[in-house]
Amino acid sequence: MLSQSIKISVVGASGYSGAELLKILLRHKHAHIEKLFANSSAGKRVDTVYPYFTKRVDATYEPYSLDAACTSDVVFIALPSGEAMNIVPELLARGKRIIDFGGDFRLRDASAYPKFYKREHTSANLLSQAVYGLPEWNREKIESAKLVANPGCYPTSATLPIIPLLKEGLTESKGIAISSLSGVSGAGRSASADLSFTEVNESVKAYKVGVHQHIPEINQTIGDATGQQVSVTFVPHLLPITRGIYTSIYATLKHTTTEEEVFAAYTKFYTKEPFVRFSPTTIPEIKNVNYTNYIDIGFRLYPENNQLIVLSAIDNLVKGAAGQAVQNMNLMFGFDETEGLL
Amino acid sequence: MLSQSIKISVVGASGYSGAELLKILLRHKHAHIEKLFANSSAGKRVDTVYPYFTKRVDATYEPYSLDAACTSDVVFIALPSGEAMNIVPELLARGKRIIDFGGDFRLRDASAYPKFYKREHTSANLLSQAVYGLPEWNREKIESAKLVANPGCYPTSATLPIIPLLKEGLTESKGIAISSLSGVSGAGRSASADLSFTEVNESVKAYKVGVHQHIPEINQTIGDATGQQVSVTFVPHLLPITRGIYTSIYATLKHTTTEEEVFAAYTKFYTKEPFVRFSPTTIPEIKNVNYTNYIDIGFRLYPENNQLIVLSAIDNLVKGAAGQAVQNMNLMFGFDETEGLL
Amino acid sequence: MLSQSIKISVVGASGYSGAELLKILLRHKHAHIEKLFANSSAGKRVDTVYPYFTKRVDATYEPYSLDAACTSDVVFIALPSGEAMNIVPELLARGKRIIDFGGDFRLRDASAYPKFYKREHTSANLLSQAVYGLPEWNREKIESAKLVANPGCYPTSATLPIIPLLKEGLTESKGIAISSLSGVSGAGRSASADLSFTEVNESVKAYKVGVHQHIPEINQTIGDATGQQVSVTFVPHLLPITRGIYTSIYATLKHTTTEEEVFAAYTKFYTKEPFVRFSPTTIPEIKNVNYTNYIDIGFRLYPENNQLIVLSAIDNLVKGAAGQAVQNMNLMFGFDETEGLL
Amino acid sequence: MLSQSIKISVVGASGYSGAELLKILLRHKHAHIEKLFANSSAGKRVDTVYPYFTKRVDATYEPYSLDAACTSDVVFIALPSGEAMNIVPELLARGKRIIDFGGDFRLRDASAYPKFYKREHTSANLLSQAVYGLPEWNREKIESAKLVANPGCYPTSATLPIIPLLKEGLTESKGIAISSLSGVSGAGRSASADLSFTEVNESVKAYKVGVHQHIPEINQTIGDATGQQVSVTFVPHLLPITRGIYTSIYATLKHTTTEEEVFAAYTKFYTKEPFVRFSPTTIPEIKNVNYTNYIDIGFRLYPENNQLIVLSAIDNLVKGAAGQAVQNMNLMFGFDETEGLL
Repeated sequence: MLSQSIKISVVGASGYSGAELLKILLRHKHAHIEKLFANSSAGKRVDTVYPYFTKRVDATYEPYSLDAACTSDVVFIALPSGEAMNIVPELLARGKRIIDFGGDFRLRDASAYPKFYKREHTSANLLSQAVYGLPEWNREKIESAKLVANPGCYPTSATLPIIPLLKEGLTESKGIAISSLSGVSGAGRSASADLSFTEVNESVKAYKVGVHQHIPEINQTIGDATGQQVSVTFVPHLLPITRGIYTSIYATLKHTTTEEEVFAAYTKFYTKEPFVRFSPTTIPEIKNVNYTNYIDIGFRLYPENNQLIVLSAIDNLVKGAAGQAVQNMNLMFGFDETEGLL
Repeated sequence: MLSQSIKISVVGASGYSGAELLKILLRHKHAHIEKLFANSSAGKRVDTVYPYFTKRVDATYEPYSLDAACTSDVVFIALPSGEAMNIVPELLARGKRIIDFGGDFRLRDASAYPKFYKREHTSANLLSQAVYGLPEWNREKIESAKLVANPGCYPTSATLPIIPLLKEGLTESKGIAISSLSGVSGAGRSASADLSFTEVNESVKAYKVGVHQHIPEINQTIGDATGQQVSVTFVPHLLPITRGIYTSIYATLKHTTTEEEVFAAYTKFYTKEPFVRFSPTTIPEIKNVNYTNYIDIGFRLYPENNQLIVLSAIDNLVKGAAGQAVQNMNLMFGFDETEGLL
Repeated sequence: MLSQSIKISVVGASGYSGAELLKILLRHKHAHIEKLFANSSAGKRVDTVYPYFTKRVDATYEPYSLDAACTSDVVFIALPSGEAMNIVPELLARGKRIIDFGGDFRLRDASAYPKFYKREHTSANLLSQAVYGLPEWNREKIESAKLVANPGCYPTSATLPIIPLLKEGLTESKGIAISSLSGVSGAGRSASADLSFTEVNESVKAYKVGVHQHIPEINQTIGDATGQQVSVTFVPHLLPITRGIYTSIYATLKHTTTEEEVFAAYTKFYTKEPFVRFSPTTIPEIKNVNYTNYIDIGFRLYPENNQLIVLSAIDNLVKGAAGQAVQNMNLMFGFDETEGLL
Repeated sequence: MLSQSIKISVVGASGYSGAELLKILLRHKHAHIEKLFANSSAGKRVDTVYPYFTKRVDATYEPYSLDAACTSDVVFIALPSGEAMNIVPELLARGKRIIDFGGDFRLRDASAYPKFYKREHTSANLLSQAVYGLPEWNREKIESAKLVANPGCYPTSATLPIIPLLKEGLTESKGIAISSLSGVSGAGRSASADLSFTEVNESVKAYKVGVHQHIPEINQTIGDATGQQVSVTFVPHLLPITRGIYTSIYATLKHTTTEEEVFAAYTKFYTKEPFVRFSPTTIPEIKNVNYTNYIDIGFRLYPENNQLIVLSAIDNLVKGAAGQAVQNMNLMFGFDETEGLL
């Protein structure tokens, strides 16, 4: 299958991450876009909703239909959390491979959904077969997965920097604090007075402190990769930028450590990773990763307090959503992992 | 009345210009805020809707009622255009003095409302008694007015620079082109996908080209002040800034003119104006006027094309709305014209 | 002296905090601005450097001279850190009262200067008589001080929220992590490629991790107020906004605590403070404090991790610099503490 | 040559447009980057100056040398205006093909350089052989050119919309007014207090009114394409966005015209152009073209004033600089014109 095209459908194609996905797929050698489903924009041409795509995409959003979706090899679901669980069962039953951008299949523990997503899971029986699509730690499982739960933007930015530290025994699993700053596109495309330019511009606020739905996802992902149970303290903030997540992590050193040892930990796990960049000297900045699929990781020891500060930056719409989804697709279909992403 | 307080009510107090008005009145020596009406926020404390006012304003928004409004000496109406016309008649009948922020009483020609505001005027009989609240050109009438139509933000930024040129015969009345750039707060406080941070940030667009409701207002105001009939070409643009309007005016010189003559024209009319600043050398910038009631005016001759370029900057919420409204109130009640505004 | 004017000079008057000071003093009943010293802008009119002040300030920057400064009752020094130490001795010798915006007299331990400010202190003998100008915790000393060291912007945003928690025994003194986000005006007014719009916009970066000069200031201030020795972990970040600091604090609870108890701690110490606002429900946002002298404090328990998250917001140029300096001046001269600041 | 790689050098490779060029060339099938010259950054790795390129570009900036440059097939010059004229003669003498981003070879009239660029031209003899690199109007000449003068960003945004109107006789050649708004990256990468974030953010200003060096370029380009002599009135403004140019054009109709006729004019000339998009309904917005090589053109009749308003948007670093340069390279070397640009 390596040199042929695969047929792709996108459900929820008119949101920001759906549009970003489309942008990436246009540069992908093996992608044939079959159907773009978007109920709210059904009947509208893509270049009417996003004039950005004029002359690039000659297509019209359609209302979702199972049969139409099943003409594809793979279905991306870019719906708000809570909606994928209603269509994934029927798509799986028809043998489709699925990559879901939302949170519906990320948590294995069904009881976490009422608590963090404020709804019961209607397809809890499928949670066990979903593969969490973090390629750096789940590559083999992703390759053969039927249903990939694409990671959240915050969890991607937080778990990739933390996992090597715990695996190498450099930092304590207890007492990890994470301060994350997100651009506004992460909140999706909808009318909301709170997200109007005038409300967001020239300001900053923390939100959903202690109750954000990405908390259990971060804990589960770190736990899976390291075998260590963690309960991170996570505080997200909304920033007046369009794209990008910046994450600052405070971890307690297990014992006296040098910056060389920290660098060695990242080297051990990530030196061959195509989309992880880390440096012993350069502090990450959002502008260095925006419009790319990279995560940049930097760090500083804070020896007087026995602390290690780790900093990361990603583009929330690329490595935090559509780019990582394509990376997963590449793995699932045996393409070069970086195809469409450089 | 000069040294006493007057009682003030605001209808539509929870929008951006209502909030800006409140901010200005807090610094005004003679202002006693009696009632804050806001139907959508009725029952909410002001500092809940705007935490900015915590510890400053101990008040609750109320639903509008005529009797409650009539306990005041002056009623500011900061409603969307089309709503003031429904309550102005009853307030006038009760002898209240009114300053209306919207467009309902700015145009004398009732037939312009269906065309530009997309609705019939329901109180057209009152249009003739409304005074257009541009203090620099209507000061005396404002002093004795019962009903002041506070000017629009774009018209304020455009008419003040143009009028002296026409009065002094420096430029033609024909062929004036106006390119205006506005911050997003001018669009008011509401949920709109088009005004979300992600849609507006890092972009610019023109809008309502040739159909903006401020076109007839600009033409009428210039006509009133100069006796010359004009039909300006006006193009508004939306910018990713919160506050401020920048207006660039292209006018044709009547004859060879020097920059000294242009400066003399502004000097003649504006040298004693407390809120008009003009300079033969400094080009206006929005940052120099934001959070002030000033309009800054600059200009450059473009002699090879027989053109004069005039540039102006105002804060759309202050000189373009609440500040000018307070300037009008000061005139109406015999206070120092700058009270609360420096 | 309460109802008379005092004569004021500003050294370093052409920087951002000098300009903000001027803006505040224009609204201050008892302020007579005597001299504005600015070596780099000497000979230029204030309204040439800052057209914002056109029609408001009719003055020219002068080169600093001791004799000229000594015609004033109080001298504000708004120079970059490292320069005040050269002129404070002569001013004190002439009996002038001084408020220094920079870091030169904030740390009592002279050995901290080479480490954090990269220079020896040339007037270390005066460190012991400087009073740290945090009114909420040093009001009495400030009233009689000759030399006030105005606090840094980050320390103001961090120490005010932390001190009550430690004094009430709610949180551990060990393991406090502080993530602070600053607008760009905090970096001062100068030509720097790193601070150009294109470099800063749509990005975020951490900087000076573990080596920022405000670290010892935060530790000293908390120590002085609480008697508890602390060593905070502090990470500052640069944001694409002009003004404002947002600080997120992670502290470990000493024992099970309710949000009511946290609220009670702030109430105990700050309920009468004119510029401290705190709430058990509202999360601070920069837009609520910008252009004001307030600090807003909010908090959330994170009980599963035994953590308390505290959030604060200030305007770095007002409560973080010029506003707090005027608050100090008001205390030193017996004026109403809020004069010029509301 | 169609399927092979060409060797490329870039002089001035460390500026913003040099970096953007590098980004585009990384996606170009036939581009082999040979040398990156940058005197100020010589000796530094590309990914040190631009961490964005980490893992993508393994190269070091070198000081310019003629011999080193001559190992390439084509030399891009991305130096500030005034510097290319010193090296172009020697490169041409060695038979190299050159694409110059700056203004040095755009104007045929040598006497315009002292007036608009404030310097004498030192290689005026070469002006006649330079080809102005606007592919839509000079495609054939570009294909065989030795020296291509890549158009300025403002002229690209203004001439492409205007030329068809004049060629079709829809608008007068006299009295064209152009209001252009530019992002800050257009000013290049350098330390300047005027371009610092704090100075630019939340503001707008016009600049170089009537004296901007792009005025003669706009006039010459329109004249060349239409045979009509024009003298446009051009006012550039600086906006707080990183990328993008928005241009609003005011033209006088020759006779009553319909929007269909305007659309037909654009269709006639641009329907086959790969990078020109135009619409009878959609108003351009910068966000639709940023990070692309497209120009978007929209328009509205303003019949009461006999005016046509035309609006355009480009990315100043792509269609306004590096993208158009690659489009020119594609033409010069017989590649698909869109290679690397979609």
